[in-house]
Amino acid sequence: MSARIPVAVLAATGSVGQRFIQLLADHPWFEVVAITASDRSVGKSYAEACHWILPTPIPAAVQGMVLQPTDPASAPAPLVFSALPADAARNVEPEFARAGAWVCSNASAYRMAQDVPILMPEVNPQHLDILSIQQSNRGWSGGILTNSNCTSAGMTVALKALQDAFGLRRVFAVSMQAISGAGYPGVASMDILDNIIPFIGGEEEKVETEPLKMLGRFDGNAILPADFTISAHTNRVAVQDGHIVCLSVELAQPASPQQAAEALAAYQAPVTSRDLPSAPQPVIQVRSEPDRPQPRLDRMAGAGMTTVVGRIRPDKLFTLRLVVSSHNTIRGAAGGSIYNAELLHRQGWVKP
Amino acid sequence: MSARIPVAVLAATGSVGQRFIQLLADHPWFEVVAITASDRSVGKSYAEACHWILPTPIPAAVQGMVLQPTDPASAPAPLVFSALPADAARNVEPEFARAGAWVCSNASAYRMAQDVPILMPEVNPQHLDILSIQQSNRGWSGGILTNSNCTSAGMTVALKALQDAFGLRRVFAVSMQAISGAGYPGVASMDILDNIIPFIGGEEEKVETEPLKMLGRFDGNAILPADFTISAHTNRVAVQDGHIVCLSVELAQPASPQQAAEALAAYQAPVTSRDLPSAPQPVIQVRSEPDRPQPRLDRMAGAGMTTVVGRIRPDKLFTLRLVVSSHNTIRGAAGGSIYNAELLHRQGWVKP
Amino acid sequence: MSARIPVAVLAATGSVGQRFIQLLADHPWFEVVAITASDRSVGKSYAEACHWILPTPIPAAVQGMVLQPTDPASAPAPLVFSALPADAARNVEPEFARAGAWVCSNASAYRMAQDVPILMPEVNPQHLDILSIQQSNRGWSGGILTNSNCTSAGMTVALKALQDAFGLRRVFAVSMQAISGAGYPGVASMDILDNIIPFIGGEEEKVETEPLKMLGRFDGNAILPADFTISAHTNRVAVQDGHIVCLSVELAQPASPQQAAEALAAYQAPVTSRDLPSAPQPVIQVRSEPDRPQPRLDRMAGAGMTTVVGRIRPDKLFTLRLVVSSHNTIRGAAGGSIYNAELLHRQGWVKP
Amino acid sequence: MSARIPVAVLAATGSVGQRFIQLLADHPWFEVVAITASDRSVGKSYAEACHWILPTPIPAAVQGMVLQPTDPASAPAPLVFSALPADAARNVEPEFARAGAWVCSNASAYRMAQDVPILMPEVNPQHLDILSIQQSNRGWSGGILTNSNCTSAGMTVALKALQDAFGLRRVFAVSMQAISGAGYPGVASMDILDNIIPFIGGEEEKVETEPLKMLGRFDGNAILPADFTISAHTNRVAVQDGHIVCLSVELAQPASPQQAAEALAAYQAPVTSRDLPSAPQPVIQVRSEPDRPQPRLDRMAGAGMTTVVGRIRPDKLFTLRLVVSSHNTIRGAAGGSIYNAELLHRQGWVKP
Repeated sequence: MSARIPVAVLAATGSVGQRFIQLLADHPWFEVVAITASDRSVGKSYAEACHWILPTPIPAAVQGMVLQPTDPASAPAPLVFSALPADAARNVEPEFARAGAWVCSNASAYRMAQDVPILMPEVNPQHLDILSIQQSNRGWSGGILTNSNCTSAGMTVALKALQDAFGLRRVFAVSMQAISGAGYPGVASMDILDNIIPFIGGEEEKVETEPLKMLGRFDGNAILPADFTISAHTNRVAVQDGHIVCLSVELAQPASPQQAAEALAAYQAPVTSRDLPSAPQPVIQVRSEPDRPQPRLDRMAGAGMTTVVGRIRPDKLFTLRLVVSSHNTIRGAAGGSIYNAELLHRQGWVKP
Repeated sequence: MSARIPVAVLAATGSVGQRFIQLLADHPWFEVVAITASDRSVGKSYAEACHWILPTPIPAAVQGMVLQPTDPASAPAPLVFSALPADAARNVEPEFARAGAWVCSNASAYRMAQDVPILMPEVNPQHLDILSIQQSNRGWSGGILTNSNCTSAGMTVALKALQDAFGLRRVFAVSMQAISGAGYPGVASMDILDNIIPFIGGEEEKVETEPLKMLGRFDGNAILPADFTISAHTNRVAVQDGHIVCLSVELAQPASPQQAAEALAAYQAPVTSRDLPSAPQPVIQVRSEPDRPQPRLDRMAGAGMTTVVGRIRPDKLFTLRLVVSSHNTIRGAAGGSIYNAELLHRQGWVKP
Repeated sequence: MSARIPVAVLAATGSVGQRFIQLLADHPWFEVVAITASDRSVGKSYAEACHWILPTPIPAAVQGMVLQPTDPASAPAPLVFSALPADAARNVEPEFARAGAWVCSNASAYRMAQDVPILMPEVNPQHLDILSIQQSNRGWSGGILTNSNCTSAGMTVALKALQDAFGLRRVFAVSMQAISGAGYPGVASMDILDNIIPFIGGEEEKVETEPLKMLGRFDGNAILPADFTISAHTNRVAVQDGHIVCLSVELAQPASPQQAAEALAAYQAPVTSRDLPSAPQPVIQVRSEPDRPQPRLDRMAGAGMTTVVGRIRPDKLFTLRLVVSSHNTIRGAAGGSIYNAELLHRQGWVKP
Repeated sequence: MSARIPVAVLAATGSVGQRFIQLLADHPWFEVVAITASDRSVGKSYAEACHWILPTPIPAAVQGMVLQPTDPASAPAPLVFSALPADAARNVEPEFARAGAWVCSNASAYRMAQDVPILMPEVNPQHLDILSIQQSNRGWSGGILTNSNCTSAGMTVALKALQDAFGLRRVFAVSMQAISGAGYPGVASMDILDNIIPFIGGEEEKVETEPLKMLGRFDGNAILPADFTISAHTNRVAVQDGHIVCLSVELAQPASPQQAAEALAAYQAPVTSRDLPSAPQPVIQVRSEPDRPQPRLDRMAGAGMTTVVGRIRPDKLFTLRLVVSSHNTIRGAAGGSIYNAELLHRQGWVKP
């Protein structure tokens, strides 16, 4: 175990930070050696400063670890997981990259930057190669790679399988998103109990652009976004974890529900990403019951990394309708970042 | 008050039946004189047989009323409100019509019959005239008129205003529906707490057809459905009352969000329906906040009869996106039926 | 209407402040002429500054009213309703009293002060007389009177009826409290969805002392607390409004459930409080169903002012067990304060 | 694995039946060879007949297994787990016992029978010896042993530790119980969303008697109930899994909260029960945070078998107050039954 790569977790006490701590607890390759928080918590132990909201205990190795300021000198590590809010990430993540660290970020700050990939190893591992350009552009010895917002994650996996098999033209996406996606304390209980909030600030814009970048082509110089169009409605509902997206898709070639189900079920991660520790097993689970997927029942499929698809049926306007479920703080956040880091390490970018 | 029209409520103990009893309690024109239930409850008092689930008390006049079998001899009245399930409605409602009663029905059994209107007085009061054809076809002295399923109700009001102003071509509709829409006991709590069920049996078919009939044209002989297309996803969520529908609409003529908001806010019921006791005041409420409508806050707008619309914004694929809220057991069920009966009475069909 | 008494609402934008605004909208005696808020909101209109969370619209008369700083010069009125947090109330409420205003306060700051009454007009209107001592002690031309915390309110009404009829010795009280009791944003949704929080800071202490003061005797000089003992457990549950308290009571004299039910149902407010505009009608509603009261069904009894009691049954350790329901932000907060002000006015303390 | 003991699960498709199937999936000692259901489902495969409501998949070995009628000939096995409702259990369980099977039952039918133990291996393993008397009384070659109702389970563990250390005199218990305790479909969603139901039929009687039997003494002939008294209020709340009980206890000897916490944390299962496969590790977890235990965070402690205790503090009327959390369908139902069967097997009662 002494050979594990030391990693730091930035903003370790928040909702996504806690998922990092939980998922990294017994990681075969990575070992948490530094954790950071905002000024108010620096100097306290993790157990003391953190209002832990997960149903498993705080990992023993982290309980007594002291929270550091969020800068490369205080949290030195070759690999850094960032659960920072976008504003803080914008300033802080480049400092770590400049200091030689690889920053696997959940923040939206750099997702749409030209030389920064939004990575899903089961979808677009080849986008990792743009990191050379990033290092060269910015003079960094490390770098930044991001994962998408939590809603885009699951639907992008499903769209990738359909894109490969049939091509994509137009996509309607309506999400019903869990409260954990808003962080902690996040959504006030009075706002969501017996209610729906049909609005999540900035989310529709992300859902309409991030999948296109992930499903685009890296031509050696730049990532060219995929040339289909997404229209999104995003909603907050009273679900603890797990996002549902209703999709209506217009395909480039005709496909029956059965053909689509087969393409989705057969989809595999590219070989380089397939057997990484956090790789979803399977990447996509197709359910045939009329009323699945459901967040409570399906969010933990494949330890929270699998995308679950169901209700594949014809659409009166486009080609097909389907429903996608994905765990928003595992596949859509911390788990996705860790999977990204595993690919980064597998491909030799991380120098411990 | 002795001059009020005597009415019967069929299946008065269920979820929609209770709303009928509640809303008719102080009705200026109608007086409940007979209530029916299934064999198990016949002969019991309403208070005894009914598991009352509304937060207002059982109206005093009905508490001790004895439940009758569901047939015209046991529940004679010139006007009958039916909360029967579709199967029972198919056999029983014609018996009442044959016996001379006007049946205002919530059931789906006859909605798509050629000579039966799906009526919303603020949308298509002229469809009432098909009742003459119905009486002639079937040799009835009474007749059957229906209201739409609860999800179609609100969205049809919004679509009517857009249709009149700009024309409609294509509509994507994704609903998030309250548990009261499934009746009582209906949805099991273990299925919906911390969860979403992305399926409601038969609902998508209804949402894709009933609005077209309501928005169609009565040419003196038949109701010709409107010639646009709807694609629907329907979902059940943990909300007590109030359905939300996310709409993406392709209009025949261009319209900005501002123009659509104005058309929606300006929409009025046809004169004949405008000042009926249950007429929604206003028909449509347009909200400008970024996060409205919400079921908990907006379902009781206009005593539960008003359709609330918000988040009117451009759409990347079609013309506009918007969010519609409507109370499913008031505007979408019992309240809608009562409004229908008021129009029927206003136009002289009911002979007390 | 021009003769109505002008009133100010302090901290008008919060959860309890909104209830004040809602309940005062059409009050026959009082008219809101000034509203205050914290610095951040001062100078904004109420509609602009307030995240309104009630399902009725903001009253038209208040929508455009400009928020003032919370001091007597900025919000001059002979009668003031305070929804201030305890810390702010401690400093600010005496300023208003010194300036001649009567402060009807929801805050806990002065509840246990020797010369300040915790008032419930249907329970202890005679405690109002201590206000003369308060004015004399403190040299105020106005004064402060408080209502109890929201959990104590309903249980105190029920205990008063039992105390009068049978005497009280010992009381076990276990509450299940609605989220609105914690203010807005208050309880994080991730903390309460699919969960219970068996702790509310400071609440058990209040529940164990405030009822004793309210049920105590004013001897002309001081309020002597009632000489029985309360032990409390307080819990937060996923309910929007309405607190439930399970009580086990040891009575001084034996009483059957039937006798207790009769005593509770027969309880009336003292004559001076009985016909005030906000007086609960009835004070106590006794329900005989095995599974009532329930917050969703019973919180709005008597427009939210009635205390609902059910499940009266023998207790193996004490005399009786019963369940009490009360609306926490109406009877237990804003509505209670307004009822207090009505009594104050009726008894001639308020000089407009 | 071929050496595992064959077991049958009676009523395998219900809420508790599913937990049996889930928890037995990889059991080191037991192997499910027969499953039964009501007539409607007999002859169907488990996957076909069962509306599976757990978030893990149906175990592969059971998916295709065909449901049998619930009688010893159709479901022959030396060890039988019964999730039957009480009425059915009353008739059917003796048939299995007569046929030589050991029936580990969740049903209440035989719990209070003189010669049937209510067993918790970490509390009263010595009660197992009454099975000889049962066999002799009834002429059975097998026998029936039961586990307690789900609410009694956790509180009995906590009371056992206090009883051993300080003695018990009087106990007030107020439960807040999860919806899964009512089976499936069980509680209607309209009844529990935004609500509390302060009544569970028959539950208070069970909570007031079953712990006394479990904490009683087996004198070689009979189980003499413990001589303290319990008074219970039981409530249903909107929680998926995990029961909370607020306890106020009068101890025979004085104890500080600190002493009680130490006694609870130090409590161990008797040696014979300590290292069984389903033994809780630890038996009791004592939490020191002010707001724990909470069902969402604590129900899965010790894989759902650990009793979690917190908020240990003085009581104004009795000695101490505390809060107990326990997983109702694991420790309080299927998991408890399996733990019982393990003890039965360990002590040599089961002859494969």
